[in-house]
Amino acid sequence: MAQGLCKRSENYAQWYNDLVIKADLAENSPVRGCMVIKPYGYAIWERMQSELDKLFKQTGHVNAYFPLFIPKSFFSKEASHVEGFAKECAIVTHYRLKNSPDGKGVIVDEEAKLEEELIVRPTSETIIWDTYRNWIKSYRDLPLLINQWANVVRWEMRTRLFLRTAEFLWQEGHTAHTTKEEALNETNTMLNVYTSFAEEWMAMPVLKGVKSENERFAGAEETFCIEALMQDGKSLQAGTSHFLGQNFSKAFDVKFLNKNNKLEYVWATSWGVSTRLMGALIMSHSDDNGLVLPPRLAPIQVVIIPIYKSFEEYELTKNKAFEIKTLLEAKNIRVKVDDRETHKPGWKFTEYEFKGVPIRIAIGPKDIENNTIEIARRDTLEKSTYQILDVENKITNLLKQIQQNLYQKALIFKENNTFTVNTWEEFKDIIENKGGFILAHWDGTKETEIKIKEETKATIRLIPLNEHQEPGKCIYSGKPSKGRVVFAKAY
Amino acid sequence: MAQGLCKRSENYAQWYNDLVIKADLAENSPVRGCMVIKPYGYAIWERMQSELDKLFKQTGHVNAYFPLFIPKSFFSKEASHVEGFAKECAIVTHYRLKNSPDGKGVIVDEEAKLEEELIVRPTSETIIWDTYRNWIKSYRDLPLLINQWANVVRWEMRTRLFLRTAEFLWQEGHTAHTTKEEALNETNTMLNVYTSFAEEWMAMPVLKGVKSENERFAGAEETFCIEALMQDGKSLQAGTSHFLGQNFSKAFDVKFLNKNNKLEYVWATSWGVSTRLMGALIMSHSDDNGLVLPPRLAPIQVVIIPIYKSFEEYELTKNKAFEIKTLLEAKNIRVKVDDRETHKPGWKFTEYEFKGVPIRIAIGPKDIENNTIEIARRDTLEKSTYQILDVENKITNLLKQIQQNLYQKALIFKENNTFTVNTWEEFKDIIENKGGFILAHWDGTKETEIKIKEETKATIRLIPLNEHQEPGKCIYSGKPSKGRVVFAKAY
Repeated sequence: MAQGLCKRSENYAQWYNDLVIKADLAENSPVRGCMVIKPYGYAIWERMQSELDKLFKQTGHVNAYFPLFIPKSFFSKEASHVEGFAKECAIVTHYRLKNSPDGKGVIVDEEAKLEEELIVRPTSETIIWDTYRNWIKSYRDLPLLINQWANVVRWEMRTRLFLRTAEFLWQEGHTAHTTKEEALNETNTMLNVYTSFAEEWMAMPVLKGVKSENERFAGAEETFCIEALMQDGKSLQAGTSHFLGQNFSKAFDVKFLNKNNKLEYVWATSWGVSTRLMGALIMSHSDDNGLVLPPRLAPIQVVIIPIYKSFEEYELTKNKAFEIKTLLEAKNIRVKVDDRETHKPGWKFTEYEFKGVPIRIAIGPKDIENNTIEIARRDTLEKSTYQILDVENKITNLLKQIQQNLYQKALIFKENNTFTVNTWEEFKDIIENKGGFILAHWDGTKETEIKIKEETKATIRLIPLNEHQEPGKCIYSGKPSKGRVVFAKAY
Repeated sequence: MAQGLCKRSENYAQWYNDLVIKADLAENSPVRGCMVIKPYGYAIWERMQSELDKLFKQTGHVNAYFPLFIPKSFFSKEASHVEGFAKECAIVTHYRLKNSPDGKGVIVDEEAKLEEELIVRPTSETIIWDTYRNWIKSYRDLPLLINQWANVVRWEMRTRLFLRTAEFLWQEGHTAHTTKEEALNETNTMLNVYTSFAEEWMAMPVLKGVKSENERFAGAEETFCIEALMQDGKSLQAGTSHFLGQNFSKAFDVKFLNKNNKLEYVWATSWGVSTRLMGALIMSHSDDNGLVLPPRLAPIQVVIIPIYKSFEEYELTKNKAFEIKTLLEAKNIRVKVDDRETHKPGWKFTEYEFKGVPIRIAIGPKDIENNTIEIARRDTLEKSTYQILDVENKITNLLKQIQQNLYQKALIFKENNTFTVNTWEEFKDIIENKGGFILAHWDGTKETEIKIKEETKATIRLIPLNEHQEPGKCIYSGKPSKGRVVFAKAY
């Protein structure tokens, strides 16, 4: 039991919460459902942001910023958007406080009531498409490939740090196109960007697919998504890319003159990932000893700890630590030397293990004599002794190996927990006792989907894309099915 | 008149507004007082963010994120904070919408009323110090050197793009220290960071100083600031660094055990800059032809435009343009080739001049023959012909020269518009007819300060630091003065 962390096998939810708090990632705030992202957690999110932002820019996108508030009436403009969304939200009704007549604190000034209430954005399609109306006149103005990094608020009743919070941080892409094909291509491009990010940076294998109508984003024609399998056998939606058709351009009257000088409605997409990814990252790799971070997203990739008894030994090992730091930094490795004399090496070992630092280097007096270092890998917890010669390339390679190993472990876990199921009994048994992804036939109706959810809590996570589809019979209704879909319990 | 831009000498305010909109920096949104920051404007802000963030990290700071909402009661805890602040703000009172009974749109669900209203943060001292109470137990937990990048809302009645908007983007640093000296040092460090950023990145000379009591941040013991002189002779506060003493630690009961095992209140600072800096940047350098950007903050530092008549010429000049782009990019120069066939070179010249791109390169068939390029500087509007040989180093140097020249021009402007004044008549004359910074004696009283403001609209921008102070007589009251202070009309 590291730092009071319970075992995953005992209580996974408790393990997760304790880990988030004790690893200094985030904590609950005095505002119901809103979290404080602590510096160490925020440093991981910053790494995610910076890598995603590069991927967005490489695919031709630019950033912009739209208002936090949305006039209430905007939500009524796209019928299915308001139906499926935005009922639970933060509503601004007044714009002034005044001193309380009893002299104790401040109260709302009832005279400062807004004519129309403002909604704190739960997502920005409405205000952005209202803005795009003025930006788009001709096919020459298209495509618009815009992303926004922002905070959004959805008034969730049951919240969990990173996974479901009233306020969260995210990016939302909103693009506008001349043709349906181009918009569909964009949706697909961004799904692929999210997939690369999940697999190559987060070391988290994902399934790609499309949502059933029931799980689709309110206002979308199709919602594409990536889903990842957490260690407790539940699925986590890790990114969505929506093909919005002309729904928002019609609702907000956004037309362009095409090359033949005729007015057409614009085609749209939107796509997003959020601080939820922090939860996905934690639940993909961490263990009973604490956090495990993939090197590409770790704020500290290597920690170096001097081991000493005497003052001379301290000086020697500390100096060597900083020498190695310089060598590693020249290779763009993120390194910290912890030479604090207030904490013992053993305490430091546990601390950085708990914080998920991929590589720990210890340097003692014997190492100085032998020109060696001791290296501990966080992913395997293995220790070994390395010659210092060429340390920068050895560590560079080791970081790559760790990244690869984490992905492979997660991939094997996913494969071992993906089940092809043909009977309803088997389906119920696996959902209840094992969890994981279940590939099963479904008759394509919302009724069946809802009944399965009611009886098992499993939902259709996605309908796989581009896979060989064999027809079959629905696991629940026995009616014909075009192909297997992926069921799971989900976060 | 470029693209419908009026001359600065005719109507400076109009020129500013038109420039912000026509250069695609920002525009007003349908939400009163909130702006949309357009991609080109946001790209400049991103450059500012990224450079400031590096400076913060170099001085030991880390980022974190605190809630958007603050419980109303928090504002009452620090008496002078609530007095001087936070009356005009966005207040969240409800958390759910419902379908309107008449079937038209949505209305606020009156049953979903919050027990305690939430304020959209106008600044985060209160919620952060409430959080710090749990983070700080001992001197070992200090200092805390935390910064937040965030949006904030102050319900301004009269708004102007970037300069004063209801919602704006900013960073707010909030640090906690064991001693007064350490907190004062931090305040000073951050004032110097802001000064470097303004002068070295924005090419904008500033004055450093301390605010009079009247202009101090609500809750601060001292507010230090930098002020820059805009082209119309008005001053703009470009950054503030507050020494908060123990005001917030006392209000939120944040104590630490010192080395002698005694409880003490923590010492605090806060400091911030905002999207207001965009306004300062524009009003420091731009001219009647449009935006002028210092190279270190320009999203595009060099634009290359092929000049051609025939298809062969297009191919030749375009290929050469991309060759040069590759050479420049190897030197980390931000380059765009505009090879669009839909727009004429003349149109492109005006466009990039208007957008403030520091260097424009044109390549025509004659240039291909002679192995030359034509270079136009945005700052001086000078054109000259360069041999392509070693172009990457020539452009690197030219960018440095332009950065330096913009700073020098702004510095000379500031010096030519700084007046040492000894009589009230002269004071009024300069404020009314010239503007600029006025160095004058002041008796140190709030009454005099307010009267001067009432009569002239000039305020004390700052009391200079570390300067030779000669005693004298107050310009207004004739009473004794310890030294000159800086007056100006201000944004």
